[in-house]
Amino acid sequence: MTTEIRLSGSGGQGLLFIGRILAEAAGVFEGKNAVQSTSYGGQVRGGSSRSDVLISPAEEEIDFPEVMDADLLLAMNQEAADEYGGKVKQSGVVILDTTFVKQPPKTRGRIIAYPFTLKTKERLGSALPTNVVVLAVISQIGALVGKEALVRAIKKRSPKGKDEINLQALNLGFELVKTGVLQRDGDDERELH
Amino acid sequence: MTTEIRLSGSGGQGLLFIGRILAEAAGVFEGKNAVQSTSYGGQVRGGSSRSDVLISPAEEEIDFPEVMDADLLLAMNQEAADEYGGKVKQSGVVILDTTFVKQPPKTRGRIIAYPFTLKTKERLGSALPTNVVVLAVISQIGALVGKEALVRAIKKRSPKGKDEINLQALNLGFELVKTGVLQRDGDDERELH
Repeated sequence: MTTEIRLSGSGGQGLLFIGRILAEAAGVFEGKNAVQSTSYGGQVRGGSSRSDVLISPAEEEIDFPEVMDADLLLAMNQEAADEYGGKVKQSGVVILDTTFVKQPPKTRGRIIAYPFTLKTKERLGSALPTNVVVLAVISQIGALVGKEALVRAIKKRSPKGKDEINLQALNLGFELVKTGVLQRDGDDERELH
Repeated sequence: MTTEIRLSGSGGQGLLFIGRILAEAAGVFEGKNAVQSTSYGGQVRGGSSRSDVLISPAEEEIDFPEVMDADLLLAMNQEAADEYGGKVKQSGVVILDTTFVKQPPKTRGRIIAYPFTLKTKERLGSALPTNVVVLAVISQIGALVGKEALVRAIKKRSPKGKDEINLQALNLGFELVKTGVLQRDGDDERELH
């Protein structure tokens, strides 16, 4: 079975970077099949950004390299949430960054809402590595790839001097899942349900 | 009509980089639609690398984001030439780097063969920017994107300190097409027909 992941938000939020990291971690370092595709131009509105990743087991080919109904949707801004919220499986999960998404979208999937950008800035002193925090969260929640493969892909692909902060961000993402704060953050949950 | 471009060769030849440059030049800087997709893992053999780019006019959506039969195939090693040579339209063009491709593949397309890596090293003192030389050649031969859009995308995406050599490589690629050396290089042509 192919797992369909859509990462959406604004240009500059680093979604293409984490899409490639995720695909490489799964495809190269865990021996699965993975396809990453990015759309440019009129099909993507304004300054928005979209990166699709599909992952299948080693013995299974990926037939159609674009997300139809997502198993996992990340929406990092309101426009992305509104545009793609409806294209999620009933069993799917929608991850919202409530720093930017103020209205939960109409969706069949389960919503996980958390102010990722805000919290990353608080904890790491910079909002820049929010993308990697979210990458860790997605990977865990979707059981997509293990930490070791992510670490290897991040070390390989991070710009010089950025691997340390990216690894800290990865740890923060794993911590958020482990401590259950994503599920029990009452304030954010109430805001959205 | 969607133009299907497949860039294939070895990992490390920079094909993902030029795939993204091409898609961004077409989609962002020329207002067309473009999708770039990359496969990782078992679907791509050994150390090989494949980057597909699809480009359509602004008013036309791209339905299927993977190359079926290429309008333009770039093969930068023998394995890629053998693997993908058969998946080219009759009206298509196959561009081979004869630095590495010694046997022309079976294909319906017209073959353009030239020792791109060798000549780039001779002319620019390094083989590294061969990918950008080839990007210029492909863009011209397929009438995919204009030089201005390529320059903008290269300036935006080149790693620090690499934009100058990449722009030189772009100029070299345009020069190769303009002077007709790709068509009339008797030695390479004879070797392959």
